Amino acid sequence: MKPVIAVINGPSLNRLGTREPEIYGYTTLAQIIQGLELEFPHVTFTHTQTNHEGAIIDALFEAQDNPDVIGIILNAGAYTHTSLAISDAIAAISKPVIEVHLSNIFAREPIRHISLISGVCAGSICGLGPQSYNLAARYLMTQSS
Amino acid sequence: MKPVIAVINGPSLNRLGTREPEIYGYTTLAQIIQGLELEFPHVTFTHTQTNHEGAIIDALFEAQDNPDVIGIILNAGAYTHTSLAISDAIAAISKPVIEVHLSNIFAREPIRHISLISGVCAGSICGLGPQSYNLAARYLMTQSS
Amino acid sequence: MKPVIAVINGPSLNRLGTREPEIYGYTTLAQIIQGLELEFPHVTFTHTQTNHEGAIIDALFEAQDNPDVIGIILNAGAYTHTSLAISDAIAAISKPVIEVHLSNIFAREPIRHISLISGVCAGSICGLGPQSYNLAARYLMTQSS
Amino acid sequence: MKPVIAVINGPSLNRLGTREPEIYGYTTLAQIIQGLELEFPHVTFTHTQTNHEGAIIDALFEAQDNPDVIGIILNAGAYTHTSLAISDAIAAISKPVIEVHLSNIFAREPIRHISLISGVCAGSICGLGPQSYNLAARYLMTQSS
Amino acid sequence: MKPVIAVINGPSLNRLGTREPEIYGYTTLAQIIQGLELEFPHVTFTHTQTNHEGAIIDALFEAQDNPDVIGIILNAGAYTHTSLAISDAIAAISKPVIEVHLSNIFAREPIRHISLISGVCAGSICGLGPQSYNLAARYLMTQSS
Amino acid sequence: MKPVIAVINGPSLNRLGTREPEIYGYTTLAQIIQGLELEFPHVTFTHTQTNHEGAIIDALFEAQDNPDVIGIILNAGAYTHTSLAISDAIAAISKPVIEVHLSNIFAREPIRHISLISGVCAGSICGLGPQSYNLAARYLMTQSS
Amino acid sequence: MKPVIAVINGPSLNRLGTREPEIYGYTTLAQIIQGLELEFPHVTFTHTQTNHEGAIIDALFEAQDNPDVIGIILNAGAYTHTSLAISDAIAAISKPVIEVHLSNIFAREPIRHISLISGVCAGSICGLGPQSYNLAARYLMTQSS
Amino acid sequence: MKPVIAVINGPSLNRLGTREPEIYGYTTLAQIIQGLELEFPHVTFTHTQTNHEGAIIDALFEAQDNPDVIGIILNAGAYTHTSLAISDAIAAISKPVIEVHLSNIFAREPIRHISLISGVCAGSICGLGPQSYNLAARYLMTQSS
Amino acid sequence: MKPVIAVINGPSLNRLGTREPEIYGYTTLAQIIQGLELEFPHVTFTHTQTNHEGAIIDALFEAQDNPDVIGIILNAGAYTHTSLAISDAIAAISKPVIEVHLSNIFAREPIRHISLISGVCAGSICGLGPQSYNLAARYLMTQSS
Amino acid sequence: MKPVIAVINGPSLNRLGTREPEIYGYTTLAQIIQGLELEFPHVTFTHTQTNHEGAIIDALFEAQDNPDVIGIILNAGAYTHTSLAISDAIAAISKPVIEVHLSNIFAREPIRHISLISGVCAGSICGLGPQSYNLAARYLMTQSS
Amino acid sequence: MKPVIAVINGPSLNRLGTREPEIYGYTTLAQIIQGLELEFPHVTFTHTQTNHEGAIIDALFEAQDNPDVIGIILNAGAYTHTSLAISDAIAAISKPVIEVHLSNIFAREPIRHISLISGVCAGSICGLGPQSYNLAARYLMTQSS
Amino acid sequence: MKPVIAVINGPSLNRLGTREPEIYGYTTLAQIIQGLELEFPHVTFTHTQTNHEGAIIDALFEAQDNPDVIGIILNAGAYTHTSLAISDAIAAISKPVIEVHLSNIFAREPIRHISLISGVCAGSICGLGPQSYNLAARYLMTQSS
Repeated sequence: MKPVIAVINGPSLNRLGTREPEIYGYTTLAQIIQGLELEFPHVTFTHTQTNHEGAIIDALFEAQDNPDVIGIILNAGAYTHTSLAISDAIAAISKPVIEVHLSNIFAREPIRHISLISGVCAGSICGLGPQSYNLAARYLMTQSS
Repeated sequence: MKPVIAVINGPSLNRLGTREPEIYGYTTLAQIIQGLELEFPHVTFTHTQTNHEGAIIDALFEAQDNPDVIGIILNAGAYTHTSLAISDAIAAISKPVIEVHLSNIFAREPIRHISLISGVCAGSICGLGPQSYNLAARYLMTQSS
Repeated sequence: MKPVIAVINGPSLNRLGTREPEIYGYTTLAQIIQGLELEFPHVTFTHTQTNHEGAIIDALFEAQDNPDVIGIILNAGAYTHTSLAISDAIAAISKPVIEVHLSNIFAREPIRHISLISGVCAGSICGLGPQSYNLAARYLMTQSS
Repeated sequence: MKPVIAVINGPSLNRLGTREPEIYGYTTLAQIIQGLELEFPHVTFTHTQTNHEGAIIDALFEAQDNPDVIGIILNAGAYTHTSLAISDAIAAISKPVIEVHLSNIFAREPIRHISLISGVCAGSICGLGPQSYNLAARYLMTQSS
Repeated sequence: MKPVIAVINGPSLNRLGTREPEIYGYTTLAQIIQGLELEFPHVTFTHTQTNHEGAIIDALFEAQDNPDVIGIILNAGAYTHTSLAISDAIAAISKPVIEVHLSNIFAREPIRHISLISGVCAGSICGLGPQSYNLAARYLMTQSS
Repeated sequence: MKPVIAVINGPSLNRLGTREPEIYGYTTLAQIIQGLELEFPHVTFTHTQTNHEGAIIDALFEAQDNPDVIGIILNAGAYTHTSLAISDAIAAISKPVIEVHLSNIFAREPIRHISLISGVCAGSICGLGPQSYNLAARYLMTQSS
Repeated sequence: MKPVIAVINGPSLNRLGTREPEIYGYTTLAQIIQGLELEFPHVTFTHTQTNHEGAIIDALFEAQDNPDVIGIILNAGAYTHTSLAISDAIAAISKPVIEVHLSNIFAREPIRHISLISGVCAGSICGLGPQSYNLAARYLMTQSS
Repeated sequence: MKPVIAVINGPSLNRLGTREPEIYGYTTLAQIIQGLELEFPHVTFTHTQTNHEGAIIDALFEAQDNPDVIGIILNAGAYTHTSLAISDAIAAISKPVIEVHLSNIFAREPIRHISLISGVCAGSICGLGPQSYNLAARYLMTQSS
Repeated sequence: MKPVIAVINGPSLNRLGTREPEIYGYTTLAQIIQGLELEFPHVTFTHTQTNHEGAIIDALFEAQDNPDVIGIILNAGAYTHTSLAISDAIAAISKPVIEVHLSNIFAREPIRHISLISGVCAGSICGLGPQSYNLAARYLMTQSS
Repeated sequence: MKPVIAVINGPSLNRLGTREPEIYGYTTLAQIIQGLELEFPHVTFTHTQTNHEGAIIDALFEAQDNPDVIGIILNAGAYTHTSLAISDAIAAISKPVIEVHLSNIFAREPIRHISLISGVCAGSICGLGPQSYNLAARYLMTQSS
Repeated sequence: MKPVIAVINGPSLNRLGTREPEIYGYTTLAQIIQGLELEFPHVTFTHTQTNHEGAIIDALFEAQDNPDVIGIILNAGAYTHTSLAISDAIAAISKPVIEVHLSNIFAREPIRHISLISGVCAGSICGLGPQSYNLAARYLMTQSS
Repeated sequence: MKPVIAVINGPSLNRLGTREPEIYGYTTLAQIIQGLELEFPHVTFTHTQTNHEGAIIDALFEAQDNPDVIGIILNAGAYTHTSLAISDAIAAISKPVIEVHLSNIFAREPIRHISLISGVCAGSICGLGPQSYNLAARYLMTQSS
């Protein structure tokens, strides 16, 4: 059975490719997932995109309860900066969660310089575009092997 | 075909008329929509009321994707002051969004003096009771004609 | 007809018993509800657990609209510290809401020292483990009798 | 006798049309007043533009003392963010004052996000260009009729 | 021998019943103690009321040194918000201290939203009027049995 | 020749008696001056009321240059809290300036708790209604005799 | 029977005359009381000086309970800036309390610019040396007559 | 025709030479202007001194409208630190404005460390006494030649 | 006659040895005084331990008035961080006061990083356990010889 | 010729392996470089470790001037949080700089939550131990190919 | 012997001309020194450019110890905003130091609005490009003659 | 072999004796070292004075690696308040580091009230002039014996 990596994307990431492309680039979410599947053919990627804070928490617990999931790649979007509830959910599960961001959040408005979830994630990768996801997947594979 | 204005109302606004009427007045949400339809008979008003932050984002994208919608009137209620996610969604769409508030948020507690969404809206109208909605609709009609 | 107390639990409380037990203890949510039913056999307890901020608001209004409900016990979890929307909903209803917390939130990180909802609740009980719920129920019974 | 609306404009608004047009637009103050007179032929508009904080206060009291004035449209310019004295003067008079801004002050520097006068005005309209004035006039007419 | 619960009340609580009754209610301190004795006939309640910060610390150590004391109910009044010394004394003793407040301190001025002592108490009960004391006593009995 | 005390009153104080009487009382400025003249028949009181920050500075220098003036009573109104320029002018003159306020500024909004001018005045009297002026005059007479 | 004014002086004021005379002057506390008795022979002045925060509260309640006391002159010294407990005690009594300070606290370190008690006093007089006490007594006599 | 440099001086600068000479020196404003005329005989210096914030704005626009003016030297005095309105006026004109200060504002109280106008001026010269003006004039001549 | 050093210890220091020994160590206060007497046999040590802020001030003045006292060793405990009154008392006396702390207050919670009294003491020694007292005594002996 | 990646390590990283291994792990810097060389045999890694802020800046410019360098991996250690100078140097060069951290800086003290350099780097990878370096190298290779 | 002016330039200023020219211009450091030598042929300019905070301090003391140096022109670059150590070194020497900046630091990010060294310099010149250096040199010549 | 104590002095301390003697006294660094050698003849003192932050870190590691060093006396000068890098280096070594300051840093500007290094040192001695060093040496001898 192939190991599973759960990819969870938060609010407005369904608009990727058309949403403020000068910040987020022209790659769509579908292309990011494709890029992951191409680079890691021996991994199954489950994918959730939701605009709901609570649904991200639901997805985190689902991934935790799925015994095949070896880790989680989470781009919580704007909830990164406001959601203590997502932070608590990450702290409540034992599998490694890697925080990723397409844009360099530290080069943007001050409110985006503070992440409420970084401290409870295993680590974070930020500003490296779609590669942020691929590097996170690579890290998870390194750890699980 | 009549132009469409999407009216989106956030948390607790379903209680309008009975909820703290000394602050929000005795007019119900249904009456506000009626008032809009009465004053602008040549406009179709779609209406969403939800207590869910994510559902407001969903509604914003739906309005954006509906080619007949010429603009959005948004009363995000308490999410006005805490939701960077709604702010990002507004920034991600190209149609004009007008922020409205029934009460004068600046005459209330300090936490209500800061709006996370004002800066990405086309403009905001606040404190003018149900008329806030009507003036927003008028503005949208002025711009679209 | 037995009086009803609505118990509403927020994000990650479905993981109680396994989630960071050194902070939250080993009692599960089911056991807490059982404990209430055992101590107050003449009360009906309705129970909602949700990870969604909006669903907590929905549940609050539902409890308000149910004529048998004499009061509400609310553990809003992490939303305690970030949700002005829940705070507004509590202010919008007339039945007494008692805020409860299992852990002593004041002995934890600074972000948990500030509750956005305490000020609009009838009162709050914090740090007393599952007993926090039982004492809240007792208070509500005292007031309604 | 026609009802009177007093329009008071603060510092640098005499330079409108040439002053930073990418922020404030190309419409002059004279054109804004003309636009009001055109849309509301049954209203007399008095107009004061001054760079002096104290002169704005003088004008507010003058409008209050003129029995024909039904309301005031105030664009206090930069004094919006620094003048407690204008705020006090508005609080000292009984006629409705509508705060207007041509630009979206919330999309600009942080110092412009805080208005010292919003809380004592009847309401505020911001970011809708010259239409901000027209909508304010419409509101005042609605209230006085 | 009956178990002892030490009740310690801080500054101005001797004026209870006449002091700002719209905030603190009409019950006197004597009535609160009576209420405790009535509900818990098998418990001895010692009672200290003092306006002196240092005397509260003295009383805390005395309770700690009394082998019959099973717990302490502390309403530190205004010292709740300013006294690190009382906080240190609580941390220095091993018996459970329950913080209580008659009024909902979170519905009052911001200076009362921060308690310096909550973090070192076993828990806190706030806003439930005289019942705050009774529930605290009940909790202590639950724990000691 | 009678000694002169210069009384300088700032913005909105011309509305005294009608302006928010629950805060400022029903006494007019004319009555305050009369009250001074009645109590101190051997003193000449010059009086300036202006809504202009700059005019207060002008009046301060005029008083300094008038050899008969023995001191100044200044109620700078809202400029108390925002005017470093008035503060500098007071520091630039050698005659004693007594700051007075009719209302207790410390019992009002936080912005009124900070006075930019108190530190450069000889002293300040606040919250004692019209008597604030009379006590200030008495102090100046005490010092000059 | 002569009316009584209670004079309460806080910490270190027993060192007046020798303590940092460049700030507090060379007058002793005894001389200040003498000055009061000399100027107001028809008033009885009771006098308390204590370095204990709690003793100031005790003295305030004692003055409140003494039917002959018409008002209180309070120089709380350093407790002015740190004691919410004294502030609460003042709020708990109905007789007028006048806050006085010998030095101009606003011309000193920032920590002395904020008074926790000004807002609950009838008014405050600051920076006018021993005369601060005499003017406070005069005010109290004016009000009681 | 000689080029014109407009020199604008703000509040209390008319007292130069006698006002706190340990901070501002013994040179009068007249002597500063003379010094400029002596060093730059081929330049005409217009000079405005005013204590009114609004009059500084008026003078800035007048200089902008005078085609012979090649630049402006502005010592806004205390308004430097409080006037967003002057800042906006500078931003609204196209001619170079050089901010000057006689004293080293950064060696004084914190409120003087922040200049609201520096950011919109071409540059600023501070702490170099009357030479601050001469160097500013030299810079303007360098740029205009 | 032997020189006297006054040792003053503040709140909860009477619990030393049993109070949180992982922070404060296992040495009792009596042992600390013994250690001083052993190392400095030619010095008389007076010792005060009190939980009362006011009593510390009383002790400071007593030490000042005792002509044999050459200096004071003060461990104000938690009052270090909250007592402006003790700070004022130290400033009011002329003998050298050395602030000591057993634990490294800078390695603990932020509230303990700020000492209100350090600035008025001759110096401070912190974190060196009971040796903090001995080194302070040594310093005082060095200075007095 | 092999492409070059410059690896720059800041203060105390020479102690890696022995320095607080519970935070930084047991891998030495030499092993990290070896790990890079092993995974990327076709890349030349230059390595600088220095405790000097200025030497990091020197190394950055050297890397920029070396035409073979395709990118820089920078672990600035504690300077991450205090050095605007390093930030400016990164902004002054055109080659991509990837910020890396071994530990999760967001799970540590607040001072480590703010990075002055993240905003000017191409991106950052944090908390993934020695893998942080390898992933950064992989990203640089991806971009340069 | 010609008088000497020491010119000290801080981090990244060696990249002038190529480094972010839209902010710093196209003039190189060599050209700035040449410009000084051209305008002041009777002055010797020594020049230090270093990226090391400590080396700037070394250079300041060297200039102080060189009897021919009449003053120092210091562009501390980013250290301006973070180095208390350079500030202390300037305070430790007696020769006049003029702070200069090419760009208008007040028109940039907030962190650049605060200079730690301005307060201890004789004065500062900012935003006037390379002329900032020439004007500083002129000032030093004026003072030394 | 004699035990070694490493004395490390930071920026501007090479100017001791001539640098602001009203703050730092007239004793030179050489005299302080002599004073140590005189009082502790059986100890070898190594001494480093440097203006470079990085060189202090180098010296700390050197002392750690020298097996004869029993402890370190560190006066980091201004870096005390700005250097997280020195703080990290202290945390990275196992030998006791005593922080010393000649002047009472808490009696100076606010920026000097916060030490970034106190929390990781064994303890700190401040304000006791050259004796600060001697007492630190004594403490180290006490611990090592």
